Amino acid sequence: MGTAHNASDAFSSSDSDRLVKHVYHQREAVDSHSDTELGSDSLLSSLDTPAPLSSSYGTTEDIKKAIEELRHALPGEHRVQTNRDTLVLHGSSENSYHPSSPHSVVVQVKSTEDVVKVVNISRKYKVPIVPYSGATSLEGHFNGYPSGSVCIDMSAMDQILEINEADGDLRCQAGARWEDINRTLKKKGIPLFFPLDPGPGATIGGMIGTGCSGTNAVRYGTAKAEWFLNVTVVLPSGKVIKTRQRARKSSAGFDTTKLFIGAEGTLGIMRIATLRLAPCVPTKVAMAQFPNVEKAVSAVQEILNTACGPHIQCVELLDDHMMSAINTAGIVEQPYPVQDTLFFKLQGSFECISETSKIVQRIVQRHGSTRFEFASTDQEAEDLWENRKYALVSTLASHPGTKCWTTDVCVPVSKLPQLVYETKEDLAKAGLKSTIVGHVGDGNFHALILFRDEKEVKSVSEAVHRLIHRAIEMDGTCTGEHGIGIGKTEYLVKELGEDTVELMKTVKRAIDPLNLFNPGKVCLDMFQ
Amino acid sequence: MGTAHNASDAFSSSDSDRLVKHVYHQREAVDSHSDTELGSDSLLSSLDTPAPLSSSYGTTEDIKKAIEELRHALPGEHRVQTNRDTLVLHGSSENSYHPSSPHSVVVQVKSTEDVVKVVNISRKYKVPIVPYSGATSLEGHFNGYPSGSVCIDMSAMDQILEINEADGDLRCQAGARWEDINRTLKKKGIPLFFPLDPGPGATIGGMIGTGCSGTNAVRYGTAKAEWFLNVTVVLPSGKVIKTRQRARKSSAGFDTTKLFIGAEGTLGIMRIATLRLAPCVPTKVAMAQFPNVEKAVSAVQEILNTACGPHIQCVELLDDHMMSAINTAGIVEQPYPVQDTLFFKLQGSFECISETSKIVQRIVQRHGSTRFEFASTDQEAEDLWENRKYALVSTLASHPGTKCWTTDVCVPVSKLPQLVYETKEDLAKAGLKSTIVGHVGDGNFHALILFRDEKEVKSVSEAVHRLIHRAIEMDGTCTGEHGIGIGKTEYLVKELGEDTVELMKTVKRAIDPLNLFNPGKVCLDMFQ
Repeated sequence: MGTAHNASDAFSSSDSDRLVKHVYHQREAVDSHSDTELGSDSLLSSLDTPAPLSSSYGTTEDIKKAIEELRHALPGEHRVQTNRDTLVLHGSSENSYHPSSPHSVVVQVKSTEDVVKVVNISRKYKVPIVPYSGATSLEGHFNGYPSGSVCIDMSAMDQILEINEADGDLRCQAGARWEDINRTLKKKGIPLFFPLDPGPGATIGGMIGTGCSGTNAVRYGTAKAEWFLNVTVVLPSGKVIKTRQRARKSSAGFDTTKLFIGAEGTLGIMRIATLRLAPCVPTKVAMAQFPNVEKAVSAVQEILNTACGPHIQCVELLDDHMMSAINTAGIVEQPYPVQDTLFFKLQGSFECISETSKIVQRIVQRHGSTRFEFASTDQEAEDLWENRKYALVSTLASHPGTKCWTTDVCVPVSKLPQLVYETKEDLAKAGLKSTIVGHVGDGNFHALILFRDEKEVKSVSEAVHRLIHRAIEMDGTCTGEHGIGIGKTEYLVKELGEDTVELMKTVKRAIDPLNLFNPGKVCLDMFQ
Repeated sequence: MGTAHNASDAFSSSDSDRLVKHVYHQREAVDSHSDTELGSDSLLSSLDTPAPLSSSYGTTEDIKKAIEELRHALPGEHRVQTNRDTLVLHGSSENSYHPSSPHSVVVQVKSTEDVVKVVNISRKYKVPIVPYSGATSLEGHFNGYPSGSVCIDMSAMDQILEINEADGDLRCQAGARWEDINRTLKKKGIPLFFPLDPGPGATIGGMIGTGCSGTNAVRYGTAKAEWFLNVTVVLPSGKVIKTRQRARKSSAGFDTTKLFIGAEGTLGIMRIATLRLAPCVPTKVAMAQFPNVEKAVSAVQEILNTACGPHIQCVELLDDHMMSAINTAGIVEQPYPVQDTLFFKLQGSFECISETSKIVQRIVQRHGSTRFEFASTDQEAEDLWENRKYALVSTLASHPGTKCWTTDVCVPVSKLPQLVYETKEDLAKAGLKSTIVGHVGDGNFHALILFRDEKEVKSVSEAVHRLIHRAIEMDGTCTGEHGIGIGKTEYLVKELGEDTVELMKTVKRAIDPLNLFNPGKVCLDMFQ
């Protein structure tokens, strides 16, 4: 069932008027918990209230018929659920504070045939269909649709189907998690790994959907590089296509694999993917402290442009607040210096790492670093890296009773110091506490902004708004790796221009003429 | 004007009935050379003969009006040309033997505004429009359209517009050549380079169009990775869009940059691209001989999957025939041993290369290599690599009086030995001479098959046909890096399935509803 989060403590942001672009009236239903299995009728009656966003979608009666048909199509226990908690949990996330709505029904699929059945029923009754698996996304990607939606839960399809060690590739189902894939490879003694490393718990389907990346992107690129050799997708028409064969390269026509990467489930539902793997290379973790972010970033720029650049697997920036949070959270035995810090992961043989580290040390010192040290043991390196990966947890643990709004933007690396500087100043002025972590090697910057109540969340939302505009004005993007969902649709035109967004809509209309696949995500007004 | 090849010695393959899927009646016009400037009338009269492929295209009269309008829109000498030689040279290539047709008019553009004007006139009169720049492609990508076409020559727009050294990116016009870009960076002392290295003379626009790659793809991936940060494109509607900002990463909506990579000019005309650059890393070239291809490929597989894999920038396979051709062509001072040979380019610092070379040497010896040696000087390394890059020239020079049909396929690396073995056997059985070179690290395989006359070219065409089917059956592709053009359209459905090809057509129809942009390429029957 994936990590279906408990939505009861999700903060209601309904008062934040900038956010409430569309009235998701179902939120109240989320706030009271009940284990009662709701009959379709009682559920559906609650769907009568909101005005559907599109009048072309199925009526309450249609949704009822669709649910009945789904029960026949997917026999077996818990395959078709209308339990209120399930509907709520699958339609919202404790990771995000965007307006949300419970689904009308949650169906668990186990095969391509199941997915096709669900898509065909959804099309027959014109009920939007929202894919769900890892439930780790931050921008409301799997939120329910206000006038009713079928949530298609892919998380049970998490199998590795084939490993081709000699070719360095692997075929798996869309619900497989990247961490499980890497654990399996390690357990089997295969010296290969899948380098995309977004948040813990993310699944291949969602990683494709959001065009994810992570700390390894400096060395290995993102989901938009060539890690997905092909995908098998169910289209809105119900047709199943495989985008490519298994060869590493192909220039046979349009790159239809890439069409689905970053499309957030709006063009097709992922079923199977062939992943390219990379050889495991020894790594070592190092840490350097700086007097300020500007100096840290200028060191990174110089390092990446030298001949030792290719040995840098990751460079992460943790600001002084984040370092303090890690100390306070009590995760580390010895507290870290509370300074803007770079975490490096260097890769290569012993000789390569040792040589690279000398060059890195020389450069960071030239840029004012006061301290540079390696993790002395593998365990220390692992802990150090875990601290980075669990930034959100540390941030929350160090500020009990708060909640955290996570956002990301990305700018050309040279603009990052200015962006960080201005953002920290802006947050201080607004009286907001925040930690900052960033995949600084790519110019990708995450702010984890804390809040306690509705007044503060409004203030956070406004600060995020200003941050995004700041990034776009620096030739950057409103989202480096978290996608658009419903959280960032309003920035798309400013960032890309009307005609580029119109091109997206043209493609969407052609592939999904009924606007049934995850409507409202990417472009809220896809069909306007 | 790019490398407009002399088409007079292009071999007419009109007798090869498998190739002649569409009758390009204009070939005769190619065979007699004339410097006479043809009036539009005399040119157009020759266009009366063939039945247009689509009755919805403009008539002879429309084309005439379009040419007149183009003359007004693009004033100045040689901007709008209807000289027969120019029309022929821009509509065919000595690198390919697919049926071709001269264009109706060739226009030289110098700005985005020019491109928009041409697109709007082409749309007004419904005349197909075919982009042209480096003219190095092999599958007939810039061939003229039988019922008449406007060839838009982008080669004069070859400027680098901006270099952002700190961010490791560069903005240039679509007509810029990758070799010129790298030469400029070197000359300016900027320690960065653009790693995509297709055939000499290729331009950025064409590289995007074909989804190119080259020898560096083992380490840096292909055009479908993340080397193009954004593209500025003129759409069939005449609208100009920029697909993304300059940040290295973005997950802001559909990946519209990728929509154009591999689309062969059928969805938009490239104007400007922002390229990501990589740091220059010292390299060293090595060579290993093997008793057969199987042993060479198995060595490559093992090398790439070890921890030293990331230090392998390139691995090229040259078969015994190719080695013999290099010797015979007289390019090298000392003849090479005539054996199946791997050329390696290793990258890294002195220590890294020296360590990697020890590992490589150990592995190749275990796989039966009889000889492994480094180029002893930089000059020798450069010469060695040039020999690989000029495989076609060597092949032709060693067989005076012959012509050469170059084709490529790509299969999972583990299937490559079988593919090479069966193909060499098949070519021998057909009595055909061929050299084989391959980007073996990616499973990408090029056959350069020689012929002297029409009978032989038919036999070559049939052998290519069998090679492609063999590759597709091995989970491979009909084209690893040369694209589809008109040469490989017939294999697309076999390789990808009808529904995947239909998805391409759906996208094409939505973006180019009049089928004006390079029609007949990628899918001949795009609108059927």
